[in-house]
Amino acid sequence: MANNLLQGKRGVVFGALDEKSIAWKVAERVVEEGAKITLTNAPVAMRFGEINKLGEKLHAEIIPADATSMDDLANLFTKSQEALGGKLDFVLHSIGMSLNVRKGKEYTDLNHEWMLKTFDISSISFHKMMQVLWKQEAMNDWGSILALTYIAAQRVFPDYNEMAESKALLESFARSFGYHFGTRNKVRVNTISQSPTMTTAGSGVKGFTEFLIMPINVAIGQCFSGGLC
Amino acid sequence: MANNLLQGKRGVVFGALDEKSIAWKVAERVVEEGAKITLTNAPVAMRFGEINKLGEKLHAEIIPADATSMDDLANLFTKSQEALGGKLDFVLHSIGMSLNVRKGKEYTDLNHEWMLKTFDISSISFHKMMQVLWKQEAMNDWGSILALTYIAAQRVFPDYNEMAESKALLESFARSFGYHFGTRNKVRVNTISQSPTMTTAGSGVKGFTEFLIMPINVAIGQCFSGGLC
Amino acid sequence: MANNLLQGKRGVVFGALDEKSIAWKVAERVVEEGAKITLTNAPVAMRFGEINKLGEKLHAEIIPADATSMDDLANLFTKSQEALGGKLDFVLHSIGMSLNVRKGKEYTDLNHEWMLKTFDISSISFHKMMQVLWKQEAMNDWGSILALTYIAAQRVFPDYNEMAESKALLESFARSFGYHFGTRNKVRVNTISQSPTMTTAGSGVKGFTEFLIMPINVAIGQCFSGGLC
Amino acid sequence: MANNLLQGKRGVVFGALDEKSIAWKVAERVVEEGAKITLTNAPVAMRFGEINKLGEKLHAEIIPADATSMDDLANLFTKSQEALGGKLDFVLHSIGMSLNVRKGKEYTDLNHEWMLKTFDISSISFHKMMQVLWKQEAMNDWGSILALTYIAAQRVFPDYNEMAESKALLESFARSFGYHFGTRNKVRVNTISQSPTMTTAGSGVKGFTEFLIMPINVAIGQCFSGGLC
Repeated sequence: MANNLLQGKRGVVFGALDEKSIAWKVAERVVEEGAKITLTNAPVAMRFGEINKLGEKLHAEIIPADATSMDDLANLFTKSQEALGGKLDFVLHSIGMSLNVRKGKEYTDLNHEWMLKTFDISSISFHKMMQVLWKQEAMNDWGSILALTYIAAQRVFPDYNEMAESKALLESFARSFGYHFGTRNKVRVNTISQSPTMTTAGSGVKGFTEFLIMPINVAIGQCFSGGLC
Repeated sequence: MANNLLQGKRGVVFGALDEKSIAWKVAERVVEEGAKITLTNAPVAMRFGEINKLGEKLHAEIIPADATSMDDLANLFTKSQEALGGKLDFVLHSIGMSLNVRKGKEYTDLNHEWMLKTFDISSISFHKMMQVLWKQEAMNDWGSILALTYIAAQRVFPDYNEMAESKALLESFARSFGYHFGTRNKVRVNTISQSPTMTTAGSGVKGFTEFLIMPINVAIGQCFSGGLC
Repeated sequence: MANNLLQGKRGVVFGALDEKSIAWKVAERVVEEGAKITLTNAPVAMRFGEINKLGEKLHAEIIPADATSMDDLANLFTKSQEALGGKLDFVLHSIGMSLNVRKGKEYTDLNHEWMLKTFDISSISFHKMMQVLWKQEAMNDWGSILALTYIAAQRVFPDYNEMAESKALLESFARSFGYHFGTRNKVRVNTISQSPTMTTAGSGVKGFTEFLIMPINVAIGQCFSGGLC
Repeated sequence: MANNLLQGKRGVVFGALDEKSIAWKVAERVVEEGAKITLTNAPVAMRFGEINKLGEKLHAEIIPADATSMDDLANLFTKSQEALGGKLDFVLHSIGMSLNVRKGKEYTDLNHEWMLKTFDISSISFHKMMQVLWKQEAMNDWGSILALTYIAAQRVFPDYNEMAESKALLESFARSFGYHFGTRNKVRVNTISQSPTMTTAGSGVKGFTEFLIMPINVAIGQCFSGGLC
């Protein structure tokens, strides 16, 4: 049921690991609606994911980038504009990983070096990405920048661990950079919280981001039996 | 107008730089109400502050601590319990510093190494502090842990720069650790946003945390002429 | 730039006074996207509006209804389903009027009889409308019910007067009835706050809902010169 | 453990039905802290309550008032200032009653006449009270006006029925009138949400405001087993 909603639009999609990824579905849908995109992910994530399959299917160039590296991000957005033939209309940031969760650390016994790394990957990457887009003047006016958040950014979800703080930080970057991008370019910066979704990040690639499964369980307990959404 | 509200209570107060500091006034008032306290600050901040004067006035021991160091924090809370004769009833976290603001960096041109350091000093120190208190079982039941926040944690204040993110992070730590401390010890963890206050941190020790002046200006513009509070 | 987004959908649009009305534009756009609709407004508002012109243009039946009357609402939704050939997919509630504002009463000197009438027209009409839709089982699964709100529902805008309370009430009805409609029919109930918009309700039909002009002035002062949005 | 915190202060306390009432406990505590007060309640509520017992114990004059009547409120505040010897420092609004809940009506089948009455008693009474205080200039500078609210004002609690809307309305009045009172008299207007409390209003005077029991059940389910507070 395509409606050509994104005819002529250009975008970059982060974080399409495999076909259960939210970013994967987004990539399929935006192309279905007429957009041209490039795909990107961290080299380490690309190794056990299936992003190449998606790239072929969508005729989308894949440009690896470590989202914590300003150089990688600069290269990504430069190449993307070349490949797509102009400035960007949308960017999806679908990145999140908690070292403390991966290592099974309790919230009251966290390793703070890992916490800094978690924030760098899951949240600061969003500021870095926008700072590069800002300096390159890479966004078209009225464009859209979107990141994935979770309700734990605003309320207590004990099992979400330091990802709660990562998402609080992410939402704050959206507010602050949104002011600047909106003022200069009418670019909208938003975060969105998906409904509980069974992704690979959540359902069990061994040793990798088991955290997403938690909000699902918590949310089910909350919204469906608790009567509060 | 003392009312003995804190008779027999023991506490630790961070961040009393000089007599314009919020923490300074809090220290004076809690002692006036009958509490016994220890004072602490970062060694670097103690050099150009006047905390010794306050310590003498209040008969309060001063225990230097870098709030980003788990060892310093462990030493601080161990020594404080010894000096005060038992577990703690309250702790005030009054710490904040932005390297990017100090260096005059724009929000769209931040140095991300400095950002990490800003977060470590201004926000992660709060988690570190609570984790040490938690492991030492240093808080009495029904105790209170408090940090200073700012409305920029929740809404857009462009001039507050990366301190907006620092405060968003701080508030998230309060929510998350508050759940654990409340569940185990009925300890309350809160953040509070003071009214616009002319502190030294805000009014101009050269090259040091000029950021506090900003919320004041912004807030004045907002609340008094704008009609929105 | 129509994309057939609403092909085959049926809806009811309240409050299209004249071509500056938000509801007027919505009506035009949903029909452009393939929907079939009926239009409605209070008999009194229809007299000095131009809804008939819109009805002709869109081939939409006009069914007058006082939105505070359960009988009128029952008639409206029964007739609408007959005219459109089935259950409804969307309903737009674009209704608001303050007697105290119209009469120039200060917030500290309100007439409380008028306040009750204001709430009945501007807010309780939303519950009434949904209660009729609920009992008639008039909404298709996954349908959408939408009302227009304003930020004054959540923060202080002194000049918005009792309309602040009206919108707070409206948003609460959306939350509460949204729970029931979502649970039974997966129908989504939302309120949306438009950007400052120069409508007739705001720009000066004499003696009628001057209130909308106020949020515009306030919002301009706030967002553009105050730096807070 | 009295500390003379309210020495010399004058106040009015609404809604002390019996010793399980929140207002009852507040009255006892403020007098214990040195305040002088008058007590008030609706004549109908006074009949099956025990407010006279409280009045004797606290040497507090009882002045009946229907909080929906501007005349009764004017009389109440005039008499209170006479009895207490000056302007007021604090007023507690502890009033709430839902006709639809009392009659067992479902949220999707409400009687809207009763709803208006519910709002008048539970919420508009708060505006009326403040409007009288405002016009009589009855509050001392820096005084405090407080009403009791509930989290259902802001999130979905299906069983709280139309009291959710009542509390949303109440909180909006606090915001709006708080702006005016703060600007003119530095008077603070707040609402506070108590922890789940077993009051008579909640625990079972037959046919009278059973609604308070509901938030208790809901809140227990939510906060204690659901992990979200």
